[in-house]
Amino acid sequence: MNQAATDSWTDSEQAIARAAFETAYNRAVMQLVASVQSKASNLGDVSSVWALHDFLSIERHTIEGRFDFRLEGILFVFASLVKDELLQLQELEGLTADKLAKISAMSRF
Amino acid sequence: MNQAATDSWTDSEQAIARAAFETAYNRAVMQLVASVQSKASNLGDVSSVWALHDFLSIERHTIEGRFDFRLEGILFVFASLVKDELLQLQELEGLTADKLAKISAMSRF
Repeated sequence: MNQAATDSWTDSEQAIARAAFETAYNRAVMQLVASVQSKASNLGDVSSVWALHDFLSIERHTIEGRFDFRLEGILFVFASLVKDELLQLQELEGLTADKLAKISAMSRF
Repeated sequence: MNQAATDSWTDSEQAIARAAFETAYNRAVMQLVASVQSKASNLGDVSSVWALHDFLSIERHTIEGRFDFRLEGILFVFASLVKDELLQLQELEGLTADKLAKISAMSRF
């Protein structure tokens, strides 16, 4: 049984979740832009260009998959974002203590 | 009947063709690197990053398709490279006058 999927979300919690999600997404995009600019400034032969293309293919796939907002499973997504330092637990304040405890615990896995 | 495919190529002509091909390839890669660096310096929101990814996908497909060295059909490839200013006719000097005339004529199509 998927406990996270059965948690109830108040309107207020959903707004907090959406805002935190948006914050993490913007950080991920900013990190990606910085990475691309760094790689672009070091381009040399054609293999480095195709390596940048491969990098973008993977990042696009990862980001588009990760930032598809759905409440189902979102505690896991938040945990992974905390683990990857794209989100801080404090930015999820307002969620129930139970949800925060789950996110915190999973982020340390 | 594909006239270009049936032309004979001396060893000397093949060496000239390979060198010209390499020259055009290097220019295409240099142009691509400059384009990527320009686009990277102007990255903003996520859509601009994905636009760069799409650009690289198309360029990779185009370049890998275009620069597959085969004598068959190479007069057409040279004509398109001359048309796109990645190669100058003078860089093909040493090919027979007949081949040069074909390349020159096709490059103006």
